[in-house]
Amino acid sequence: MPQLRKDPVVGRWVIISTERAKRPTHYEHRKYEPRNGPCPFCKGNEEMTPPEIMAYRPGESSRQSPGWTLRVVPNKFPALMIEGDIDRRGEGVYDLMNGVGAHEVIIETPDHELNMGVLSEKQFEEVLWAYRDRILDLRKDKRFRYVLIFKNQGSEAGATMEHTHSQLIALPIVPRTVTDELVGAQEYYKYKERCIYCDIVRQEIEDKVRVVSENDNFVVICPFASRFPFEAWILPKKHSSYFEHASKQEYVDLSRSLKETLVRLNRSLNNPPFNYIIHSLPFEEMDNGHYHWHIELMPKLTQVAGFEWGTGFYINPVTPEEATRSLLEIAI
Amino acid sequence: MPQLRKDPVVGRWVIISTERAKRPTHYEHRKYEPRNGPCPFCKGNEEMTPPEIMAYRPGESSRQSPGWTLRVVPNKFPALMIEGDIDRRGEGVYDLMNGVGAHEVIIETPDHELNMGVLSEKQFEEVLWAYRDRILDLRKDKRFRYVLIFKNQGSEAGATMEHTHSQLIALPIVPRTVTDELVGAQEYYKYKERCIYCDIVRQEIEDKVRVVSENDNFVVICPFASRFPFEAWILPKKHSSYFEHASKQEYVDLSRSLKETLVRLNRSLNNPPFNYIIHSLPFEEMDNGHYHWHIELMPKLTQVAGFEWGTGFYINPVTPEEATRSLLEIAI
Repeated sequence: MPQLRKDPVVGRWVIISTERAKRPTHYEHRKYEPRNGPCPFCKGNEEMTPPEIMAYRPGESSRQSPGWTLRVVPNKFPALMIEGDIDRRGEGVYDLMNGVGAHEVIIETPDHELNMGVLSEKQFEEVLWAYRDRILDLRKDKRFRYVLIFKNQGSEAGATMEHTHSQLIALPIVPRTVTDELVGAQEYYKYKERCIYCDIVRQEIEDKVRVVSENDNFVVICPFASRFPFEAWILPKKHSSYFEHASKQEYVDLSRSLKETLVRLNRSLNNPPFNYIIHSLPFEEMDNGHYHWHIELMPKLTQVAGFEWGTGFYINPVTPEEATRSLLEIAI
Repeated sequence: MPQLRKDPVVGRWVIISTERAKRPTHYEHRKYEPRNGPCPFCKGNEEMTPPEIMAYRPGESSRQSPGWTLRVVPNKFPALMIEGDIDRRGEGVYDLMNGVGAHEVIIETPDHELNMGVLSEKQFEEVLWAYRDRILDLRKDKRFRYVLIFKNQGSEAGATMEHTHSQLIALPIVPRTVTDELVGAQEYYKYKERCIYCDIVRQEIEDKVRVVSENDNFVVICPFASRFPFEAWILPKKHSSYFEHASKQEYVDLSRSLKETLVRLNRSLNNPPFNYIIHSLPFEEMDNGHYHWHIELMPKLTQVAGFEWGTGFYINPVTPEEATRSLLEIAI
């Protein structure tokens, strides 16, 4: 019998229906379009990108030249423009404002790697530090209310460059997905005086059926009301609202959790395209007892994505319990 | 300068950023996987589907045999099961219920057509009558709270069968997308004592810049805060909450609007894969002054879909005004 499951935070119902399942190994993924010419994200091609915003350079080396281990540059085709006033205004029944914001690319390695999973734990750590450094810098700009940090890997997941990279968008608004979580978490807190994510972490660690991995600071689960096959969430065990307030040791542990999860997904699903997004508290909100930052990771398995995309309603053919079992079968 | 635009009903902000645009004619679409054997949706192959739920048979002909013009059958791989009790229950912090519901396929023509756009206006009308007949039948079942009617055309839009068809899912819950619209429309009504959709229709007809077509009963617009390039909404001009309460003449006019929109999209975008969804009031709600049923149609143009899918945040590289202009250039 299929099940209808409700996401306890945002109240979204999903259908978990294994009737329509495919064996994970059947998934095939499209390749990137063949690229013409050199990769602008590779070491030696620094001049091909807009001037770098920041870079980690372990030795002596100068800006816009090799010697870096990680590099952040403006997106060459930005969705938003960094200069200008927001200028909120109406047009009859409609509201709009100027598309002011930052759109940056975090180049995760100087080498032409296509798969984030092959990076070392040290490199994952650098990626997390870069996210944090950029958030802390951008939150000084009072025009911005949120920094959306996300990664697309694979063309089906929306990546146009194959060289492994993440992106960030600093926004003068708070995305609806974040507001929905905030509202849901607040309501639970009002009723129970507890953080709903903390309750989820506690229950999952106890139940064990959806825990993919665990270390001192993080737990990786396939969420109870997964929208997509092999969806995975990484949650800090200790309550905290802001990604950028994590401790050094937490970033170390998160690197391990993230790398391990990607390796498991790669081996289970033949290097699937995926997206992940960091969910963290908007700047204007005070650190609080109810919002709990986390990462949501979604492999994009083409065959099952169309319906959800169109209707906003989710049918998931793989139970999270089964996804967890598959991921745990992988020898690390 | 890119713009941030807010959907006036659900409050979702989207980035309209033409920096990243592609010319419409550049869109290429994948073909369906080659099928093995005969098509179960074609006339003469009625035995290949589960027993039909209903069919339009203009002459004498018997069930599960040729002679029909439109046929409704249960989905062979249903996401939900029609038999059983809902049995709402909890599991610690989580809520779930049995996946009870209907999942039906509306076969729009006995001929093996791949593109809905080639059907006649008469056939479009039959499709709409079938939607209505099925909703009216399913709403008698007190377990159901909503019937989601949608169409996927093209494999990128989630269709697995190429023979043109629509689907419906009867649900014991109301999808979040619908609740969000209801809440937004209600709030506007409280403040203005007017229907927000009626205000949109009025303003669009006056402004003209986003109107793709218009007849006595319907207007087709590219919405102000379009999430996707060439997104199109079909709205009844007269306020009404339920799709299934439309008059005979309204279905005639809607057929014309829908067919014309598909023809324009097909010619502008090289027969794009698309989804459309009927948004109508949940059964348990009373016909009211604030909710206004409509159809949302979204071409799926692969290159731009990944980001939104992952983040729940929308970047649209084509302004709705430009999309409207392109669609109006098509000679009908």
